Amino acid sequence: MHRAASGLGARQLRRPFAIARVSRFASGLTSRSPSGRRCLSQQPKRSVAQYLQWKPAEKVDDVVVDGYVRSVRSMKAHRFVSLGDGSSLAPLQALIPIDQAEGVAVGAAVRFTGSWTASPGGSQSHELHVAKVEVLGPSDPKTFPIQKKYQTPEYLRTMPHLRPRTPVNAALLRLRSDAIASLTQFFANRAFTQTHPPIITSSDCEGAGEVFTLAPASEPDMAAGSGGAKEQFFRSKKYLSVSTQLHLEALAQSVGNVWTLSPVFRAEQSDTARHLSEFYMLEAELTFVDDLSDVMNLAEDMLRFLGTSLFETATVQGLLSRSGQLGSVLAAPEVVRRRWEGLMQPSWPRITYSDAVDLLQQESDLFSLKPAWGAGLQSEHEKFLAEHVGGGQSPVFVTNYPRDIKAFYMRGEYPITSNANATVECFDLLVPELCEIAGGSMREHRLTPLLDAMKRQGMAGDKPSNDDDLESAAGNLDWYVDLRRWGCPPHGGFGVGFDRLLSYLSGVQTVRDIVAFPRWHGRCDC
Amino acid sequence: MHRAASGLGARQLRRPFAIARVSRFASGLTSRSPSGRRCLSQQPKRSVAQYLQWKPAEKVDDVVVDGYVRSVRSMKAHRFVSLGDGSSLAPLQALIPIDQAEGVAVGAAVRFTGSWTASPGGSQSHELHVAKVEVLGPSDPKTFPIQKKYQTPEYLRTMPHLRPRTPVNAALLRLRSDAIASLTQFFANRAFTQTHPPIITSSDCEGAGEVFTLAPASEPDMAAGSGGAKEQFFRSKKYLSVSTQLHLEALAQSVGNVWTLSPVFRAEQSDTARHLSEFYMLEAELTFVDDLSDVMNLAEDMLRFLGTSLFETATVQGLLSRSGQLGSVLAAPEVVRRRWEGLMQPSWPRITYSDAVDLLQQESDLFSLKPAWGAGLQSEHEKFLAEHVGGGQSPVFVTNYPRDIKAFYMRGEYPITSNANATVECFDLLVPELCEIAGGSMREHRLTPLLDAMKRQGMAGDKPSNDDDLESAAGNLDWYVDLRRWGCPPHGGFGVGFDRLLSYLSGVQTVRDIVAFPRWHGRCDC
Repeated sequence: MHRAASGLGARQLRRPFAIARVSRFASGLTSRSPSGRRCLSQQPKRSVAQYLQWKPAEKVDDVVVDGYVRSVRSMKAHRFVSLGDGSSLAPLQALIPIDQAEGVAVGAAVRFTGSWTASPGGSQSHELHVAKVEVLGPSDPKTFPIQKKYQTPEYLRTMPHLRPRTPVNAALLRLRSDAIASLTQFFANRAFTQTHPPIITSSDCEGAGEVFTLAPASEPDMAAGSGGAKEQFFRSKKYLSVSTQLHLEALAQSVGNVWTLSPVFRAEQSDTARHLSEFYMLEAELTFVDDLSDVMNLAEDMLRFLGTSLFETATVQGLLSRSGQLGSVLAAPEVVRRRWEGLMQPSWPRITYSDAVDLLQQESDLFSLKPAWGAGLQSEHEKFLAEHVGGGQSPVFVTNYPRDIKAFYMRGEYPITSNANATVECFDLLVPELCEIAGGSMREHRLTPLLDAMKRQGMAGDKPSNDDDLESAAGNLDWYVDLRRWGCPPHGGFGVGFDRLLSYLSGVQTVRDIVAFPRWHGRCDC
Repeated sequence: MHRAASGLGARQLRRPFAIARVSRFASGLTSRSPSGRRCLSQQPKRSVAQYLQWKPAEKVDDVVVDGYVRSVRSMKAHRFVSLGDGSSLAPLQALIPIDQAEGVAVGAAVRFTGSWTASPGGSQSHELHVAKVEVLGPSDPKTFPIQKKYQTPEYLRTMPHLRPRTPVNAALLRLRSDAIASLTQFFANRAFTQTHPPIITSSDCEGAGEVFTLAPASEPDMAAGSGGAKEQFFRSKKYLSVSTQLHLEALAQSVGNVWTLSPVFRAEQSDTARHLSEFYMLEAELTFVDDLSDVMNLAEDMLRFLGTSLFETATVQGLLSRSGQLGSVLAAPEVVRRRWEGLMQPSWPRITYSDAVDLLQQESDLFSLKPAWGAGLQSEHEKFLAEHVGGGQSPVFVTNYPRDIKAFYMRGEYPITSNANATVECFDLLVPELCEIAGGSMREHRLTPLLDAMKRQGMAGDKPSNDDDLESAAGNLDWYVDLRRWGCPPHGGFGVGFDRLLSYLSGVQTVRDIVAFPRWHGRCDC
């Protein structure tokens, strides 16, 4: 990685890994690429975040800064302007002579040229004394919908095209970008192949909830399929993916360990802080592994790496130091800080579902729904486990759930000796407040046990089903069953709801506010 | 970046940048993360690619290799087995005692333990003398559909779940992964924010072709919208994105320069080597830039960086050295090599559309469709320009197309002084054989010119249109127009069809073979 020394850039490098942050602060260092080859495009101009870090002893003339006017305060001979560009929560302070101030209105896009000068007082060490103003994108401040005063999350959600301009929403965009870069690095370090599994799929029967179907907009009736296969765009009904796992398994049998960060879709009519109709899933498959611990180790290492590489960035520290001022958008700073610290804990507890139920039953009085072996864990149970097994400090793995409440593809004892207590090799990863943040399992890699499981769950597909014929139960998952016919080694993987993870780590209270253009039942603005 | 020295890993590092390749070969170096923090998961085992690079003078015992049996050759007391794991085009040679050979069949997933030994002859310096065989995933070689002999691309397309197991398709998956990592690094170096624009959108009127609509699978009639807004999942008809550009522009007004690699969808009933119903687009937006050259510079730098960082990787070199043997799947090696060299050329020609038409008209006899100012460039014209302006060596930018044949959002002279020769600030990037590989423009950032352009193109939306009211022409793009009302600086960007780019650079003749699970009209397998 290119790390030429610079007064401006070097200051930011004291982190174990910061692919995006390093570069965000590395501008102006060179106009040659690391390889020494010619590079045409100019390095980006200094950002507001970079200026705020830059504290020269002598004033520096002829500096240029681009940004958006956040507020204007009138003085006798000057205007005090707060300028933001999305690179930091804090704005840059600029002092503008009154004869240059025309058009410098809240919301305007401007370019200021002037002197970077030690500030005589106030909260910032330096300020910009502006000599020249260019209004590059005018604004009518009277109608500009984004105001400096507190605006409710729901009000901001009505204008997702403008909402990203608030400093906190810009910080959430930076956090997402840094998280993607960190994860890309994590998996590259481990020689995982990043893949693009399909979004349009043939399978609707993974048990992950209601799905969307699609059709050409000019002939939407195709979706219904009433006109027969010939009239459908893809000949038969297709769906938007709810999980890339099944396809990832096929790719893992090609190149070994794989991962993806892909959009997935659910047509649930739910109206909660945790659900969207469109969201990103991070999914990984490990091949030639036979032990669920290997899968949990990877999930734990990945999340710890993410925490470690991002915690000290200006974005995260900014969100932590400011979150108390941001009203109901963000959780309290001490809560969010504890989440990051939890992620960075060196070892996370692992407990089996059966032990967890024992534990819950000892505290049965606490719960409105009584814990019972064989039933799913309720939110109140998961919260208890996250708080008590993890000490409220670190995430907690709960493993080996009952077979009957888990997906058909999870590996379990075969043949089953006792239906009463059969479990599968799976885990849910629980965190305080949010509960499940990741889930994974060993996949059933043996043909007959897989077909048995599909039969047990009644997974007949498009083809005529015949009880005497195990294989017909696979229906439109024939291809998935096929993977087991030739050379299927033991393997397993996990999935993380990426937007939910970012909500958790930013303290944003609902996934609707972590996604720039959120879609849920009844809402798809812009 | 972590680059501990190692006999096995260090050999691969002679490249300016190779985030994925470095790590692919860096396994086994350490079980601690770069930050020194605890790392639970084991480093990946040595891959076949790593073994093939490893040439110890003395034989090394007790080495373990996982992989899939590609072929078995019977000798008197032994079996010669070719073992592949998707990490290289070439297989590893293993020698198995006959009493260990049970189940070692083509297609099987196996774990071999043995001695890594100098090979007495043959094409490889070393081979594995197997002491212990574990068949982890059995195979019936008689029914295994993937054979070592040549199989037609169309035959392989009928089984996309198994096709990735062929060595060349595994190489294409690795190329994709390396390209994503390279681009992530490129944009991080330049402090671009990586974003996730929405897939489900409200806009169907970007002129990019036929779109898909969607509805819950259990109530597909919702898509038709006949039941009124109340019955539709999102209240009104929604679409799968054909381009993220419009939303990217909104995000750029938040955090500055942005990029994304997102799936996009087209419901075209086309049946060509260049079109899919689902594909990935790389799109970037630069903000606070006023010159189309800045946008072209970025596109050129990005593609040159991609070329430079990937060209010397084992994957690309392997595809180049082998492509002649791969029948009709891949273009001739010399053709593909020229493409990479073109991408690495230090400067690419730029020519205006008007000059290009002049040039074409001088050679008018060559073309079945005569070039004429004001008409779009035909494929034969683009090929001529790529060959003659770029000398068949490097990509060629053609700029400033007539306003009337380009999208409404492209910036042009305003007010228009002469309709006859009005152009917009845009470019197409042409490459030999494939023609257009990228396109970009300055975006119209001024409110009135944008509304004028939308009106000219008849873009009335859902709202009642009123000729006297310019703004109503925006229809369901009101939000996009809004971006111009408050603080819209000059900006521009470009898009690259990512799968088409990978086809071009791998020599794959159709995008159907570069995508693992391709979807096009009438075809959506698995």
